Amino acid sequence: MNDGRKTAISAEQRADIEAQRAESHTTRRATVPALEEVLYEPYPVLDHGFVRVIDYMGDDDAIVQSARVSYGRGTKRVSEDKGLIRYLMRHRHTTPFEMCEIKFHVKLPIFVARQWIRHRTANVNEYSARYSILDNEFYVPGREQLAAQSSSNRQGRGDLLQGAEAERVLDMLRGDAMQLYSHYEEMLNEGEDGRAADPSRQGLARELARMNLSLNFYTQWYWKVDLHNLLHFLSLRADPHAQYEIRVYADAMLDSVRRWVPLAYEAFEDYVLGGARLSAGGLAAVKRMLGGETVDQGESGLSKREWQELMSTLGREG
Amino acid sequence: MNDGRKTAISAEQRADIEAQRAESHTTRRATVPALEEVLYEPYPVLDHGFVRVIDYMGDDDAIVQSARVSYGRGTKRVSEDKGLIRYLMRHRHTTPFEMCEIKFHVKLPIFVARQWIRHRTANVNEYSARYSILDNEFYVPGREQLAAQSSSNRQGRGDLLQGAEAERVLDMLRGDAMQLYSHYEEMLNEGEDGRAADPSRQGLARELARMNLSLNFYTQWYWKVDLHNLLHFLSLRADPHAQYEIRVYADAMLDSVRRWVPLAYEAFEDYVLGGARLSAGGLAAVKRMLGGETVDQGESGLSKREWQELMSTLGREG
Amino acid sequence: MNDGRKTAISAEQRADIEAQRAESHTTRRATVPALEEVLYEPYPVLDHGFVRVIDYMGDDDAIVQSARVSYGRGTKRVSEDKGLIRYLMRHRHTTPFEMCEIKFHVKLPIFVARQWIRHRTANVNEYSARYSILDNEFYVPGREQLAAQSSSNRQGRGDLLQGAEAERVLDMLRGDAMQLYSHYEEMLNEGEDGRAADPSRQGLARELARMNLSLNFYTQWYWKVDLHNLLHFLSLRADPHAQYEIRVYADAMLDSVRRWVPLAYEAFEDYVLGGARLSAGGLAAVKRMLGGETVDQGESGLSKREWQELMSTLGREG
Amino acid sequence: MNDGRKTAISAEQRADIEAQRAESHTTRRATVPALEEVLYEPYPVLDHGFVRVIDYMGDDDAIVQSARVSYGRGTKRVSEDKGLIRYLMRHRHTTPFEMCEIKFHVKLPIFVARQWIRHRTANVNEYSARYSILDNEFYVPGREQLAAQSSSNRQGRGDLLQGAEAERVLDMLRGDAMQLYSHYEEMLNEGEDGRAADPSRQGLARELARMNLSLNFYTQWYWKVDLHNLLHFLSLRADPHAQYEIRVYADAMLDSVRRWVPLAYEAFEDYVLGGARLSAGGLAAVKRMLGGETVDQGESGLSKREWQELMSTLGREG
Repeated sequence: MNDGRKTAISAEQRADIEAQRAESHTTRRATVPALEEVLYEPYPVLDHGFVRVIDYMGDDDAIVQSARVSYGRGTKRVSEDKGLIRYLMRHRHTTPFEMCEIKFHVKLPIFVARQWIRHRTANVNEYSARYSILDNEFYVPGREQLAAQSSSNRQGRGDLLQGAEAERVLDMLRGDAMQLYSHYEEMLNEGEDGRAADPSRQGLARELARMNLSLNFYTQWYWKVDLHNLLHFLSLRADPHAQYEIRVYADAMLDSVRRWVPLAYEAFEDYVLGGARLSAGGLAAVKRMLGGETVDQGESGLSKREWQELMSTLGREG
Repeated sequence: MNDGRKTAISAEQRADIEAQRAESHTTRRATVPALEEVLYEPYPVLDHGFVRVIDYMGDDDAIVQSARVSYGRGTKRVSEDKGLIRYLMRHRHTTPFEMCEIKFHVKLPIFVARQWIRHRTANVNEYSARYSILDNEFYVPGREQLAAQSSSNRQGRGDLLQGAEAERVLDMLRGDAMQLYSHYEEMLNEGEDGRAADPSRQGLARELARMNLSLNFYTQWYWKVDLHNLLHFLSLRADPHAQYEIRVYADAMLDSVRRWVPLAYEAFEDYVLGGARLSAGGLAAVKRMLGGETVDQGESGLSKREWQELMSTLGREG
Repeated sequence: MNDGRKTAISAEQRADIEAQRAESHTTRRATVPALEEVLYEPYPVLDHGFVRVIDYMGDDDAIVQSARVSYGRGTKRVSEDKGLIRYLMRHRHTTPFEMCEIKFHVKLPIFVARQWIRHRTANVNEYSARYSILDNEFYVPGREQLAAQSSSNRQGRGDLLQGAEAERVLDMLRGDAMQLYSHYEEMLNEGEDGRAADPSRQGLARELARMNLSLNFYTQWYWKVDLHNLLHFLSLRADPHAQYEIRVYADAMLDSVRRWVPLAYEAFEDYVLGGARLSAGGLAAVKRMLGGETVDQGESGLSKREWQELMSTLGREG
Repeated sequence: MNDGRKTAISAEQRADIEAQRAESHTTRRATVPALEEVLYEPYPVLDHGFVRVIDYMGDDDAIVQSARVSYGRGTKRVSEDKGLIRYLMRHRHTTPFEMCEIKFHVKLPIFVARQWIRHRTANVNEYSARYSILDNEFYVPGREQLAAQSSSNRQGRGDLLQGAEAERVLDMLRGDAMQLYSHYEEMLNEGEDGRAADPSRQGLARELARMNLSLNFYTQWYWKVDLHNLLHFLSLRADPHAQYEIRVYADAMLDSVRRWVPLAYEAFEDYVLGGARLSAGGLAAVKRMLGGETVDQGESGLSKREWQELMSTLGREG
């Protein structure tokens, strides 16, 4: 799973992870070998971040069981289970998908964490910079991500910055972050063993010093969520309109979902990720076109923007 | 665990349960032997109900790990873990307790389900009487629960009904429920193999016929909740002010929690179940009494009701 | 608004409502005259139920303001506001819609309340049958709702019951409910002024006696919800697949939304109520058809059920 | 309300606020003159922040009405209403308090926003730095807040920094923030009228440039919450253990609550803010002391920390 990129895992952390991966217990609970395989293993994201699954509850069968409120495994033939899961997804019967739960450990830049936390139906425990000292790790975009403001979409990116301008931006991002962290350490004034680094000074409280770090510094948290709410998160954050820096986390999590609940994942791909929504006006236009009419934007009743979006959905020239 | 009382488990359901209990998987996840021991096993409650744990995620260590956002097991000495868990509980740092999750299968009278569902921070999948036919099982209180309205508490029970009055009540409850179910079946008109029981009639839609059942009929659901919200539920529903018929479910779940997360349970017992809240006025009165003053209700500034509650908390004569 | 149907409003309640409608206050808050017009006024639903709006916060402008996090009214031209609201709805930017809040008082059969309460993101205060005595009001379906079980949809209704069978069902529903309420009263044994009706008996506690009532008895609650979650509720419960008895409440609330936030309502109608979702497979089939191919179910890769649903969406013969 | 401190309100914003304050509408809704008085008016917090109430729903009566599920104003005598509200607060009947809703506009440092957002049961719309450009406003603590790390509490503050050390910290905080903003502007390269400030460069996308700002920069949001969840937030954030920079916001909001729902506020002060919780062990110790025993930490069974906390609660020497 590790593609050789540098991750943020220290030797000590790696040893902790290996120790946990080496544990083996006997359980009566539903267990998913394909997910167990990568359990606890960090999946690198961005330059110093990662996502790793650290616990899970339930599997595809648990969705079926709870839909049937059954006493046992509740599974009939695989084809029936698959059909039931597809039916539930298609008709937005969401509660059976809430019966599966997953817990991630995520390391991510603070500005990504601030987007992520808007999804409220999850449990979060974040590393506390009131209580502890943050590591000297910050995100700097790769050149292939260093984009100008989009001219057409106020929330998006346009062309890549070139040459000297790109260089200058990277220098500022790197230089500022390094200076901030150095000042953070100086303000904290904490040395080995809890003593002051410079005994002539007191050192600023951690809860204050942290305010000098910028939004590209990495934080980390435990994030626990049920499958329904995870899929909702992924439908928004694995979307092309999502900011790249959160989308790569969503992509990594999609892989976990595929391993964990393959039938639910397939239904999700078919009905949500790969599907489309039509407005009343868009649907009316499609019906007319299917009836053989030629419809253009003007007479469709749709705005230009909506018409473009419809044509793009249908894979046609606007 | 089963004390020989009749439960609502059919032979077929029992076989399903045994089959699931017989399964054994290997997992890298945190596993709790004391809870595995009773996994899937129904714990009888009331005359036909039960609670059974059907899945769980995490253990006491998971609380500690998430509080420390650690990479590995994160456990130090047991005494430190215990101290940390007590600290978290005492200072209402609730998010680490949200990192454990448990799933119950519960069979319960509908009027109990209606109280229970007010707790919104949980996932529920209820047996659908729109889709399926409810069983002929209804709750009838035991004689030791057949109480008159309390004269002091508009929400509570007073003395037990006696003799003929008790008999008459039990007869009405039983007789009405039997008649309702018989009419329910007649309206449904469903026989073997999906054919009409009486071919000369159509049978009423299930979603309509169910309205003729009374609130003491049993329903069932899967209920999944995190440990923090479960403890909050239990603090309200295992309380002496809760209605007896929901309190017995809470009591059964307390036993599951004790098996699952013994350190968290002990802290919960000490700080919540066995603890007390004092109002500003109550605290002022206690301080004066500790200073040697004799304080009575009149000069305490508390209302009569509040004074009684304070005296009761302090184990003193009012 | 009142179409002359009998409602469940007593003379005393009517006087309370009129007194509240007669009040007039001066406020700096956003105010919506079209909703003020019907404020507090019950809108009859089913045979004894109603919905009435009893408070609200915000209007279409509040959506715009919060999307812009503006200091003042924030409104630009009406056309811009409308465009922004449509954009937010189309791209599922849901948080601005959460900035409007509405509070309903609803009287509804218990089996409808049990479906309704599954929507957890709302505030509810229900009339307590532990504390108070329920009225003698129960729902009996009209003949035009007395349908047989659907043969094609396990959750739906088929043909109407006819003649003697319909008569028999109505007799059972009415007769059973009347008997239950009469036994409920007998068990309670409460007379005037809190004295026992029959002084030789104690009377059963309210929290127990209520279990003898059936699911078609009416309860009532205050239900408060934000606009986003209300629209989600309505998209599921005003849907033709919803059970008739909850759909009529959803329909009544749609009318309130139209009065309250006409721009948001229009966008909701266009993008949600009147729109459609296509799966990946359905979209692929539409693209091929638009390209001039003849596609049938077999080669579409869709199941029969999905194909029928697609044809129905597109208004075509299957 | 404005004490003459510099606020972050521009002349244009002030005009928007005044325009909104000048509006006057007629409504049938419950209206609270004491809150209307300060509606829309910013209450300054920290060096550039504020809190202002921009909408509300309900009042003390609404709590009473919903507890009684009444048809009209539902108010009896004021003393009865007060008693009912106190009863509800004392016995944690929280749902009636959820029937009141309030909306704030808050300007606050990002590190405060990150603490605040952990409270999930609220609606939030934050100013988007993906979409818009943040203002050049950052928080610098006053000297009386510039504290060293506490030696006894890993989450708290100790003595104030003195002289040169304080000076050096303030210089770093100010200097770094100014440099960051200057680089932010340079990276954005946005001039008047949407043209590039420096036409030879493109300018970095807003969603990227923002990552160079530090956590003491101000953001702003609309925050809407029900009274129950607001009181819970305030019980944690107006607490002496909360970080000073969020506590000042909580204090400002306490004033709004006092104006809005004076009876609920008084009950909250008495039962929550001014009250205390005792553990089972703490309660046992108090009972023994009241019985005349001398109890010390060793024989109390409490840990040193818990004993100190108990003595502090009781206002006694440890």
